[in-house]
Amino acid sequence: MKPWRTLSRIPVLARGKYLVVEDHEIELPGGRVVRDWPWLVMPDYINVFAETAEGAILCFEQTKYAVTGTTLAPVGGYLEAGEDPLAGARRELLEETGYAAPEWIPLGSYAADGNRGGGTAYLFLARGAVPADAVRADRVPSDDLEEQILLRLTRAQFRQAVDERKFRVLAWAANAALALRRLDS
Amino acid sequence: MKPWRTLSRIPVLARGKYLVVEDHEIELPGGRVVRDWPWLVMPDYINVFAETAEGAILCFEQTKYAVTGTTLAPVGGYLEAGEDPLAGARRELLEETGYAAPEWIPLGSYAADGNRGGGTAYLFLARGAVPADAVRADRVPSDDLEEQILLRLTRAQFRQAVDERKFRVLAWAANAALALRRLDS
Repeated sequence: MKPWRTLSRIPVLARGKYLVVEDHEIELPGGRVVRDWPWLVMPDYINVFAETAEGAILCFEQTKYAVTGTTLAPVGGYLEAGEDPLAGARRELLEETGYAAPEWIPLGSYAADGNRGGGTAYLFLARGAVPADAVRADRVPSDDLEEQILLRLTRAQFRQAVDERKFRVLAWAANAALALRRLDS
Repeated sequence: MKPWRTLSRIPVLARGKYLVVEDHEIELPGGRVVRDWPWLVMPDYINVFAETAEGAILCFEQTKYAVTGTTLAPVGGYLEAGEDPLAGARRELLEETGYAAPEWIPLGSYAADGNRGGGTAYLFLARGAVPADAVRADRVPSDDLEEQILLRLTRAQFRQAVDERKFRVLAWAANAALALRRLDS
């Protein structure tokens, strides 16, 4: 099975580090050429569900621009340029919750959009998390634009949230279902 | 918890029905205004894992432009304008595999990207699937641009594929983990 071959890529729109749209010219395995295939260059990102040493699952209730109403969400954020995904996940967990964890289980890396790119999502489960920054662990972080409230779910509440589709963004649903599969195994 | 309010949206790039990029002007709950927030208008889509009446899980091995090498994949495709997600899922299952199923279990709808939009993914599990179009059920469909081979996985093979991260696109990983959770419950 042969991959498509990129013949050329031309940037057609740029919005800083968050989005570059390119037009690709692509050669299919049979020789056919496709022009103006839109491709999205977007930052890679991580998401993390962390289980505390007491067995609670850390997540947020929050608003999100692409979601109507509120949603539950894991820790998450864009990787910095050149940042290792695990290092970024540890950084975001600390920044957003004040917790650090000794055990990290990678749950895979995935293309955000199979046709258009849109960056790679790196998903993690962290276990044994303990407060490492007392100030942050007790309050909502203020550096993100969206409002969010830190929740500590029991395993049963986490299962119920997955089954009731409370994680309303694709990466979060994937992360939650994969983390739960690992926790319950 | 208050949502962000869209003050204006201006299309800045269009690529037919596949992609329109807009710049949004947004008012945050505290009154702060954010300008030039990139927003992606892309088609909604469905993904389906179908279990046959004999208990095999239908999926594809295929290439995908955003994935290096090959990946496993569920049935999937864009919804047509105004098409009901379940109707689209039935249509794609028949078009891509030749199968039809009597039992459909919705596994949720999710924003492709929580910040940028990018359409909504509707995920399904279908059960009891039987061949309804003998020609298609015996051969690879030819109307998609990417090469793909129809596989019939046992439940154990499906579990292993999820755990070995063989579904390498976010929507597919979410669909697989959620379908498996339902099948194994």
